[in-house]
Amino acid sequence: MPESTCEIVTTGNELLIGKTLNTNAQWLGKRITSLGIRIARVTVVGDNVEEISQVLKEALQRKNRFIIMVGGLGPTFDDKTLQGIAIALQVELKLEGNAMKMVEDKYRKYVEEERMENLELTPHRVKMAMLPQGAKPLSNPIGTAPGVITKKGDTTIIALPGVPPEMEAIFEDFVIPILKKANVNRTYFETSIDLTGMMESEVAPVVETVMHDNPYIYIKSHPKLKEKSFHLELHLSTTAEDPKIAKSRVGKALIQLTEIIQTKGGKTNPSIPP
Amino acid sequence: MPESTCEIVTTGNELLIGKTLNTNAQWLGKRITSLGIRIARVTVVGDNVEEISQVLKEALQRKNRFIIMVGGLGPTFDDKTLQGIAIALQVELKLEGNAMKMVEDKYRKYVEEERMENLELTPHRVKMAMLPQGAKPLSNPIGTAPGVITKKGDTTIIALPGVPPEMEAIFEDFVIPILKKANVNRTYFETSIDLTGMMESEVAPVVETVMHDNPYIYIKSHPKLKEKSFHLELHLSTTAEDPKIAKSRVGKALIQLTEIIQTKGGKTNPSIPP
Repeated sequence: MPESTCEIVTTGNELLIGKTLNTNAQWLGKRITSLGIRIARVTVVGDNVEEISQVLKEALQRKNRFIIMVGGLGPTFDDKTLQGIAIALQVELKLEGNAMKMVEDKYRKYVEEERMENLELTPHRVKMAMLPQGAKPLSNPIGTAPGVITKKGDTTIIALPGVPPEMEAIFEDFVIPILKKANVNRTYFETSIDLTGMMESEVAPVVETVMHDNPYIYIKSHPKLKEKSFHLELHLSTTAEDPKIAKSRVGKALIQLTEIIQTKGGKTNPSIPP
Repeated sequence: MPESTCEIVTTGNELLIGKTLNTNAQWLGKRITSLGIRIARVTVVGDNVEEISQVLKEALQRKNRFIIMVGGLGPTFDDKTLQGIAIALQVELKLEGNAMKMVEDKYRKYVEEERMENLELTPHRVKMAMLPQGAKPLSNPIGTAPGVITKKGDTTIIALPGVPPEMEAIFEDFVIPILKKANVNRTYFETSIDLTGMMESEVAPVVETVMHDNPYIYIKSHPKLKEKSFHLELHLSTTAEDPKIAKSRVGKALIQLTEIIQTKGGKTNPSIPP
């Protein structure tokens, strides 16, 4: 089975101007990687329909198995993700019955809870149920705007709201099962060691030797600059069909790495507090 | 003068897998926006030379005034940004004299401080001074790897190390003056108000009215979902040649926005704690 790759597209001017830290991309990166799916690229664009559709078209050309879009599904004028998807896929936006029911049910609940006086389905509210033709809604257990799923060729496109708890809830409920199904036999395993007494430029050839001898292992050094002394984190990771194989591969590389480092006068600690 | 746009390209598998939060992109977003330069896109790619060069080629096609690349300048095998730039610009990597002196001076200092036994310029260390032909180094006051600056047509490409204090120091020392020079007469101004008692879908048409009446003002609503009640932040921003004009424009829009909200039963607070 070919490797499954995923791209993440997060939209929102607040991300570009640095008002908001892109924790959604980190959360998705961790979650998706843990399922053995490789994240190939993350793109951040503003609330601009041309840019959103352009980024989606580019990601489709790269033949990813999944494209996950975050943000821009709400009721305001600058929530433009569905319009961007429609343009990229060359389809119309159409009122989708199930999505409309989801949105209506939410507002009815707000009326029942006396948070709203009466149920008025304004154009701004109906907008959240106007999906690109062929797309299906994903129920939002927390907020109002449903998630959206559609396909183009072999690529599954999933759009999630940008409010983190809404994004996470829809991801857990609907996206995880889809990703797992597409990627039955791959798991990801990672570990880190803490290294002092060697500079990154000294460790570099050691890492290359260990990676050469352990072809499925990826090792990356991260300088810890806050420390006055030379201090690095070495991060080892692999993806394998069998979780046991993944762990034993990492273990083997870790032993070799530690041994060479010790002969060169470096000091390692097996774990790093999170 | 046409609007100056900037794209940010951050490299590192640790960003894709969610091991590291992309605080560099946020820091640069804030800093660059405050200078009146619009960030058009942020891209995150892995430590893969084809992807780095591909993303740079794409960003060059979009005719940005600036492309700022972060990460991948260090001594390890997976520090591939300079190679990626060389491929994208179709130039060779060449040992650059000033860069070599910067790297050598750093290691000589480490020897003087007795953190290293002797000055050995290994290939991994020399690598940090192998710049794309025509590029110049930017001195790194904190770490070893210099920043790099080069041009392609009207686009200035700047590469900074990924370790945040190194990135920030080089940015403050060398990049700020360049950005300021390119963008003499534009300032950015922003403010926020806190709104309770209205749903985002109710506020949406109000925002549209105020934006219609204030064509240079951008208003974005951010739901604060942690609150049980309806709670929004409304963020107003503008870019203008004169800081006074920017402020007075935002002030005018703010007054209109607050007045309409109050007639609709919403409650506003002028400021939000950071």
